[in-house]
Amino acid sequence: MSLAQPYLLFLGDAPDPLAAKVAQGIRDWRPDAAVGQLRLPGCNADMGLPDMTVPEAIAAGAKTLVIGVANRGGVISEAWNKVLVEALEQGMDVAAGLHTLLRNQVPLVNAAARNDRMLHDVRLPNRPYPIGDGKRRTGKRVLAVGTDCSCGKMYTALALEKAMLEAGRKASFRATGQTGILITGEGVPLDAVVADFMAGAVEALTPDNDDDHWDVIEGQGSLFHPSFSGVTMALIHGGQPDALVLCHEPTRTHMRGLPHYDVPGLEDLQPLALQLARRVNPDCRVIGCAINTAALSEADAMAYLAETEAKLGLPCIDPFRQGAGRLAEAL
Amino acid sequence: MSLAQPYLLFLGDAPDPLAAKVAQGIRDWRPDAAVGQLRLPGCNADMGLPDMTVPEAIAAGAKTLVIGVANRGGVISEAWNKVLVEALEQGMDVAAGLHTLLRNQVPLVNAAARNDRMLHDVRLPNRPYPIGDGKRRTGKRVLAVGTDCSCGKMYTALALEKAMLEAGRKASFRATGQTGILITGEGVPLDAVVADFMAGAVEALTPDNDDDHWDVIEGQGSLFHPSFSGVTMALIHGGQPDALVLCHEPTRTHMRGLPHYDVPGLEDLQPLALQLARRVNPDCRVIGCAINTAALSEADAMAYLAETEAKLGLPCIDPFRQGAGRLAEAL
Repeated sequence: MSLAQPYLLFLGDAPDPLAAKVAQGIRDWRPDAAVGQLRLPGCNADMGLPDMTVPEAIAAGAKTLVIGVANRGGVISEAWNKVLVEALEQGMDVAAGLHTLLRNQVPLVNAAARNDRMLHDVRLPNRPYPIGDGKRRTGKRVLAVGTDCSCGKMYTALALEKAMLEAGRKASFRATGQTGILITGEGVPLDAVVADFMAGAVEALTPDNDDDHWDVIEGQGSLFHPSFSGVTMALIHGGQPDALVLCHEPTRTHMRGLPHYDVPGLEDLQPLALQLARRVNPDCRVIGCAINTAALSEADAMAYLAETEAKLGLPCIDPFRQGAGRLAEAL
Repeated sequence: MSLAQPYLLFLGDAPDPLAAKVAQGIRDWRPDAAVGQLRLPGCNADMGLPDMTVPEAIAAGAKTLVIGVANRGGVISEAWNKVLVEALEQGMDVAAGLHTLLRNQVPLVNAAARNDRMLHDVRLPNRPYPIGDGKRRTGKRVLAVGTDCSCGKMYTALALEKAMLEAGRKASFRATGQTGILITGEGVPLDAVVADFMAGAVEALTPDNDDDHWDVIEGQGSLFHPSFSGVTMALIHGGQPDALVLCHEPTRTHMRGLPHYDVPGLEDLQPLALQLARRVNPDCRVIGCAINTAALSEADAMAYLAETEAKLGLPCIDPFRQGAGRLAEAL
């Protein structure tokens, strides 16, 4: 999966900023990736980029129109289609992570075929992956693992990459989900890969590299989440991490989507994740914790971080409040 | 996945008995499932069933022709095609677990369509599966987990089902691989299921049941096998086992297909598998070990079993040499 950059960010008729969170992620983490934004009447999101028509975006060098907004009711509307077809006809590719696949939209398929353009549905793999072989690779890898799904693993990995690059070190965020893929323009949509090839897909995503280069791998699911633990396991064994960052959201009362399951603590995650990772990399270490304290006050957040740090003896930070500098130092 | 029985076992031009191991599995474990066998000139396998032409098999009640032999060079030959088309035209479905898919063979697709018959490629899922929800289900489940791939998990599960049924108890072997699916006529080809739906597929395979009914779930992969551990994890969390049987092959010097990985011991597997299973079923227990001693002499096998039993304090048997009666008793 590889998207041509720079992007034109399509915000459509986003009813509120939250609906455009994919565009916001690109804006936050790859500010140079987009040359402008395209908004339709009624759009209530704004990335602070120049508003552009399709021809203006082409003139500014845009190669791919990225749909940075969720579509309402799972339908790609007439108004959306008009813009997307125009983009294809004028020479841009179109990329999206929608449930509604671009490749199932007849007008888009026709326009892409007529103009030799690509439709990227980043929700689905677009290439075959090998079966994993577990062989040691050169370079270093750090993986974010969580006590639950959706507890800040992507954010943590992006913040860690940023801190590493700011410190002048070699690092690459490696996306394993659709938002991460749209942000970086490449990656593996791991939850859509066929079971036998999960570990091999992660190996392909994090190949041999310079000895001082770090792949910062986006985590998925949780070893403790019965619906998705197999995906997490494949990330650990395929990712062959030298280092783990433990991610946690301290106010959650149950596993995401499963009210009948308690959320484990960091002290449960640490030994299990480490034991499994050492099967493929005996040198693996847990280097710190990234806590999503968005639901806490500043004072409560700082108290929680200090207390957790004392308890576990590991750097504990909130990457949103504090950045991931201390985790980068720990690597 | 559900195949109409009884079967006609197609042995083709099997060069030796080993090439017909799928047919042998059906013969061993579901002796009433097949009314006859069909052999082509040069066939060196024999299931001891009546040799039948397609019309004779139809007259004997056969509903599905099962390809019980591997095809040479990945090609379905002219000679095979002739028989398979005849079977479809006379009213049988055709089922196979070949790498070469039936659905990609034009003559077979045409014959199936003309005669309203099914082509079952059991290597691939033929229905959507839900995302797992980890909710406790009624009935009991036992899962075979292994120190490695291909160490006897399917055999163990089938032997355990047999011992349970012979003791007058309620049990159902639940197939998770292609050979198991052809043997029982139903199941989930778990290694071909998309990552997000693995646990849900196992839940769908082992639904609510009578309180005294045991699903005997075929294991796949190994928690210690870097290529396939995610599949094993999904089986443990989706299968929600009340009981685990640990499977092991004591003479193997490295993990299957991975010469750079040692095989763990049963003492490594026991605590890890149990910890993971208790996430979804706090009552889960390890009830015994099934050792594949085919590579040992009778004396060495008995000595190994006795020694392992003393060390682990669990019933340790070879299901091929001894049957799985002691495991059934332990349930």
